[in-house]
Amino acid sequence: MEFLVEIEVDLPPQTAAPERARLAEAEARRGRELREAGTIVRIWRIPGRTANAGIWAADDATALHAAIASLPMFPYLRADVTPLATHPLEA
Amino acid sequence: MEFLVEIEVDLPPQTAAPERARLAEAEARRGRELREAGTIVRIWRIPGRTANAGIWAADDATALHAAIASLPMFPYLRADVTPLATHPLEA
Amino acid sequence: MEFLVEIEVDLPPQTAAPERARLAEAEARRGRELREAGTIVRIWRIPGRTANAGIWAADDATALHAAIASLPMFPYLRADVTPLATHPLEA
Amino acid sequence: MEFLVEIEVDLPPQTAAPERARLAEAEARRGRELREAGTIVRIWRIPGRTANAGIWAADDATALHAAIASLPMFPYLRADVTPLATHPLEA
Amino acid sequence: MEFLVEIEVDLPPQTAAPERARLAEAEARRGRELREAGTIVRIWRIPGRTANAGIWAADDATALHAAIASLPMFPYLRADVTPLATHPLEA
Amino acid sequence: MEFLVEIEVDLPPQTAAPERARLAEAEARRGRELREAGTIVRIWRIPGRTANAGIWAADDATALHAAIASLPMFPYLRADVTPLATHPLEA
Amino acid sequence: MEFLVEIEVDLPPQTAAPERARLAEAEARRGRELREAGTIVRIWRIPGRTANAGIWAADDATALHAAIASLPMFPYLRADVTPLATHPLEA
Amino acid sequence: MEFLVEIEVDLPPQTAAPERARLAEAEARRGRELREAGTIVRIWRIPGRTANAGIWAADDATALHAAIASLPMFPYLRADVTPLATHPLEA
Amino acid sequence: MEFLVEIEVDLPPQTAAPERARLAEAEARRGRELREAGTIVRIWRIPGRTANAGIWAADDATALHAAIASLPMFPYLRADVTPLATHPLEA
Amino acid sequence: MEFLVEIEVDLPPQTAAPERARLAEAEARRGRELREAGTIVRIWRIPGRTANAGIWAADDATALHAAIASLPMFPYLRADVTPLATHPLEA
Repeated sequence: MEFLVEIEVDLPPQTAAPERARLAEAEARRGRELREAGTIVRIWRIPGRTANAGIWAADDATALHAAIASLPMFPYLRADVTPLATHPLEA
Repeated sequence: MEFLVEIEVDLPPQTAAPERARLAEAEARRGRELREAGTIVRIWRIPGRTANAGIWAADDATALHAAIASLPMFPYLRADVTPLATHPLEA
Repeated sequence: MEFLVEIEVDLPPQTAAPERARLAEAEARRGRELREAGTIVRIWRIPGRTANAGIWAADDATALHAAIASLPMFPYLRADVTPLATHPLEA
Repeated sequence: MEFLVEIEVDLPPQTAAPERARLAEAEARRGRELREAGTIVRIWRIPGRTANAGIWAADDATALHAAIASLPMFPYLRADVTPLATHPLEA
Repeated sequence: MEFLVEIEVDLPPQTAAPERARLAEAEARRGRELREAGTIVRIWRIPGRTANAGIWAADDATALHAAIASLPMFPYLRADVTPLATHPLEA
Repeated sequence: MEFLVEIEVDLPPQTAAPERARLAEAEARRGRELREAGTIVRIWRIPGRTANAGIWAADDATALHAAIASLPMFPYLRADVTPLATHPLEA
Repeated sequence: MEFLVEIEVDLPPQTAAPERARLAEAEARRGRELREAGTIVRIWRIPGRTANAGIWAADDATALHAAIASLPMFPYLRADVTPLATHPLEA
Repeated sequence: MEFLVEIEVDLPPQTAAPERARLAEAEARRGRELREAGTIVRIWRIPGRTANAGIWAADDATALHAAIASLPMFPYLRADVTPLATHPLEA
Repeated sequence: MEFLVEIEVDLPPQTAAPERARLAEAEARRGRELREAGTIVRIWRIPGRTANAGIWAADDATALHAAIASLPMFPYLRADVTPLATHPLEA
Repeated sequence: MEFLVEIEVDLPPQTAAPERARLAEAEARRGRELREAGTIVRIWRIPGRTANAGIWAADDATALHAAIASLPMFPYLRADVTPLATHPLEA
């Protein structure tokens, strides 16, 4: 099943540069794993914000939550999840 | 998989009484079928409005859409769907 | 360039059944053309509503508007468009 | 009487790991008590967020508030409460 | 149990004057009955709008819904209901 | 003149326990004074939140503001005020 | 006591021109009366909309509602009312 | 002085094709006049909607309102107006 | 030209009392200057909040911004500005 | 392609004056570069707020994001981006 996942990251402005860099690198690494595993099907940046929109695939909402919660940035992000149904044009 | 489905019905005020009655009866009949099939797990009225909140079970969003769209009131309602993940307290 | 396009259709409830059927068929035909042309890259139904979310590709916002406005349902729909930037995970 | 209770937890990002762990454990313990007492009838995670939706049973709003306020996370959460009426399909 | 009930009435502008008068009178009559029965504890007009705010008393949300739905204006109104808990200042 | 006053308290999570206790006690004391003076006519807790709804009586908005601003929690709260007009059912 | 009153007029688009003219004239006449009586202290147009913002003076919310409801456009408008307190700069 | 003007047109769906064409032509004619007069400095379509965003120049809000109200579509549109101040980068 | 300016002040709760007093005094002094210069035409407190609504007069949005930005509380406030057009009742 | 970019800056109130000055200067320098490169086509201040509205030109959303993210204030701002299509009046 696919989901539209819109993620907004809100890192506290006082986060020190090294911690920022460490988090960014860990996030990118975990993101690549989820992308290679096919959990993140497609992902785009929302221009002008530290936000992204993505199509995620997971067995159900429980598996989807586990995937999103595995992101190192999870304590600093908020994800809005829309379940997606097959559209007749793709059926 | 379970979903929280919040439905608001907005029947045009000029709908004649017989059509209103016919729709209400057809809606109740289809609702009972979905309840007996286990698609509607629980359902409540939101007091003061022609609205309800329910826990629905369906294989995925496609099956859920088919179930909601099978309601005779579908052209007059709007459903907000929240996918639900297992909570550790119930795992 | 890709865009996230979220479309909500709001056909007046008093629309007669034949007109509804004619519109739905014309909409499906035009949708297939846009899909085959690669303008609609992916499209999903939002469960419980006469709404969809899609990834559209177009040269720019002017070409995107022309594509959306070519839908027979255009007078009855509202599209929210989010421009999408390449995400580092896909770069 | 039943209530739909939607809880969003907003723990300050600077909370230290041990305090986070202590709070999570205390929260889980109190949650189990409320679940066993029948106050929390059903509970789900909202995927992608530190949030949950639940069906709670309490004599009235005063008893419900006491139950929610007994959660160790209470200073860090916000609950939106919808009173639920019996739906004819369940009457 | 008490509830804060905020009601907004949205009578279609094309409603003819006699129907308007008939509805207003029936609404006032039913309102007086609910007031005398103690269901409507207090009620105020929201200035500048066809809206009111009231404190209603009912055994539970089911009884409250029955009371609101008994208003002749029910098809034309929308009620927002907030359940009320005892405040320590009044305990 | 009466007002519907909805107050949401947002004490910073890092407030130390003794300061929290001191504020809560001072707030309760001032609340009792306003209640005895007839300024707070009725007051309820909004379940699940550090919030309340109340009916306040004051000569005008200036006197009402003075009463609300006299609360020790004033720097940490936000009040939404709705002026109330007499409803024909109570006239 | 003074109030900030923001009025948005939503005349049904199908209203015939003569009825539109009659309403506009009656509205202007009643507006002048309220202005001369000192009920409307100041009034401005919100550019680009059939809307206005005004400072109204009335004994209380009940008198204010009577004044707004006396406008011939009352069935077609929505007023948002903010009670105003004396500011120290004007005290 | 310049203003950001965002206009959303909401023509009733039942408007007949000839009336639609007549309005569109009159709107385009008046738009060209305002553009040539320098009142509309720049204008863009919001993709996917019958909406536009524009930079308008007018002596003040009164002149701006007169210009917007001179559009044949005025009864069917809603304009949101943001006054614009000189930015240091352009000073 | 006149503007409706609604200002909400959000001083960080941890601001020490002497700094609070200094800011309040400086704000009052600057407010009196703007009032005497005719920039602030009228001003009211919004009851229950550290907020005010005012009618400001300025040559244009640039001059208005300079006036608001000259307030000592400017780093802690947010102003919503509505440009005002002459209403026929005052023309 | 052009974009409407609305930027709101939210610098933490506790930022020290020298850091504030350094950021403001760096921001102005980068702004001038983007203006001279034709990326920022026009820009205005939103009166009363640390916010601006601008017309930006970029090849696509990816280039636009790179330009906005190059602003020294990027960690403290939020940009809302609307893609702009050619309007027939300018075609």
